[in-house]
Amino acid sequence: MFQDSQLKPGDVIGIIGGGQLARMMCFEAAKLGFKTCIYSDTENSPAFQVATSYVCASYDDTKALEGFTDRVSSVTFEFENLPVETLNFIASKLPLRPGAKALEISQNRLVEKKFFNDNNIATAEYLEITSYEDLVAGFNKFQDSILKTATLGYDGKGQFSISSGSTLEKIWHDATESNLPLILEKTVPFEREFSIVAARSIDSKIIYYDVVENIHESGILKKTIFPAKIDPNIKDQAEEIARITLESLEYVGVLAIEFFLVDGKLLVNEFAPRPHNSGHFSLDACLHSQFEQGIRAAAGISVIEPELLFSGRMVNLLGEEVNQIPELNKNSSVKTHHYGKSEIKPGRKMGHYVVRD
Amino acid sequence: MFQDSQLKPGDVIGIIGGGQLARMMCFEAAKLGFKTCIYSDTENSPAFQVATSYVCASYDDTKALEGFTDRVSSVTFEFENLPVETLNFIASKLPLRPGAKALEISQNRLVEKKFFNDNNIATAEYLEITSYEDLVAGFNKFQDSILKTATLGYDGKGQFSISSGSTLEKIWHDATESNLPLILEKTVPFEREFSIVAARSIDSKIIYYDVVENIHESGILKKTIFPAKIDPNIKDQAEEIARITLESLEYVGVLAIEFFLVDGKLLVNEFAPRPHNSGHFSLDACLHSQFEQGIRAAAGISVIEPELLFSGRMVNLLGEEVNQIPELNKNSSVKTHHYGKSEIKPGRKMGHYVVRD
Repeated sequence: MFQDSQLKPGDVIGIIGGGQLARMMCFEAAKLGFKTCIYSDTENSPAFQVATSYVCASYDDTKALEGFTDRVSSVTFEFENLPVETLNFIASKLPLRPGAKALEISQNRLVEKKFFNDNNIATAEYLEITSYEDLVAGFNKFQDSILKTATLGYDGKGQFSISSGSTLEKIWHDATESNLPLILEKTVPFEREFSIVAARSIDSKIIYYDVVENIHESGILKKTIFPAKIDPNIKDQAEEIARITLESLEYVGVLAIEFFLVDGKLLVNEFAPRPHNSGHFSLDACLHSQFEQGIRAAAGISVIEPELLFSGRMVNLLGEEVNQIPELNKNSSVKTHHYGKSEIKPGRKMGHYVVRD
Repeated sequence: MFQDSQLKPGDVIGIIGGGQLARMMCFEAAKLGFKTCIYSDTENSPAFQVATSYVCASYDDTKALEGFTDRVSSVTFEFENLPVETLNFIASKLPLRPGAKALEISQNRLVEKKFFNDNNIATAEYLEITSYEDLVAGFNKFQDSILKTATLGYDGKGQFSISSGSTLEKIWHDATESNLPLILEKTVPFEREFSIVAARSIDSKIIYYDVVENIHESGILKKTIFPAKIDPNIKDQAEEIARITLESLEYVGVLAIEFFLVDGKLLVNEFAPRPHNSGHFSLDACLHSQFEQGIRAAAGISVIEPELLFSGRMVNLLGEEVNQIPELNKNSSVKTHHYGKSEIKPGRKMGHYVVRD
């Protein structure tokens, strides 16, 4: 019943999660004339500093959620690991864009891999692991592989590399501490890593950003080269996978898909049902950023061709690296972004910068 | 004593005035890691929606001003018509960038013209008008001319065109209603109108944006073409005038100077000690916008080359024209900006858009 509603200037867009993604969404929402209300369970969330208003409460606080849904006209999120009940509660009251289905799939690596394979999209080989015996059998089958918690993992957390010298008992012990479902993924001998950000609006229009190349360090994105220097057929593969994913989910919003390149073919690693770190370049290097597309989609406005303005690279500032900003600010080819986080922690995403080629 | 202080991420920048200029400053302050606090006397100010915090109180409310200065580390403004006592109060407590001197000059067209002429910068001819006899004598001298209130005028308000058919008695009656000092400016038979935005930081570094061409309607800026299609010597003249102005005032911040082109020579019309409507293109078309430069200057960070990314035009959306935004949002070459003002009034600046050539 909400599917055709289009927000009017002055309406409030609710954003779940209060980190840097929500913060950047707030800028773009304001340019489109919308007010913003952040819902986050974390005090001093970076997005609180730039939102019109905010609610700080736990994600299962029904009363707080009800107050939140009362003051907003549409809801989107920067953070997908929400209880299903929370998502269903919001979706019963208001347009939730993207919808609960996409979030549920993205929350569980097993469900996610099955979704892609069911749509004839290749991923790494994988096995569900429910016992130590499963792990031993899986290792015998795959050899080099990665044991991951199927839920709640991000930025390399909850991941355990397995190779010939590994002690499986210790890995089993560490991985089962969290009591989460487990997945064993065969290590992919990839040549390069790419991603694509795409968006779809309620009128079924789809737009794609340029495919970008990503360099990870310790499981965390370190650098994105935009656009990736690739054959046109790689770009075609990425867009086709994004299109199938968006259409199959009847998706309304921004989505990112990460790929491994193996023998000229893209394998899907995972997807994120929200703006993505590898799309941050678009805030400076495109006329229409991934954050604008997310707000457009949430507001019922058609998504739009991004219009790339320049090529270059995006570099994350992790932990103490944020202290490079004063020096970076002396270079006119560089645009820095500080996320306004008060506490520096090792590996924490504190900011990023874009360098124009 | 404050002149060398540089703000740290997390510090709060105070911004006087709560309109669209302050709103756009807030986006750029956040990217540099600063919190923002708006001080405005107007309820529902557009910048309240995107600032970290705000104070809504009259500009001569000493107690409110004291509370404001207690929570911020540096102060800038989007609105220069403040009581001198307010400026002096702020400047006694904190870095005020730009400083009170530039504001005082910009507040009075008589003082402003004298300032430029004293620096050997040409303006239109003018006379101070203190009596009806002055007006008659001035008209006999200049013929076509404009009677303006010397203070508090903007966007064509407080301006009265005089030509051969005018009834001087009626103009005198209307112009003296406000009881403000008056200036008579000889009408300049200009060919085109230009402006330049420039900025200077505490380290004396100066940067210039491209000279742009402006088209006014009823005294209000309607369209800006960036960059202006001009001879290099016009650009040189504009930059030289900006440099002299910035250095003579020991200015720290962003400034805009408006010019008339007459016989290949620039005459200064007026200057604004803040980001300017004719520099709005820089938010989308430069890597570093005029709003970023203003925040850099206020924070004690060096200003930086803007890095123009594309050429095009900026168009203001006045009054009901704001309703063009949904249609404009369908064109990928267009980036729209809605100012979040709830009430539409004729001639009110409600938003703008930038078109990429």
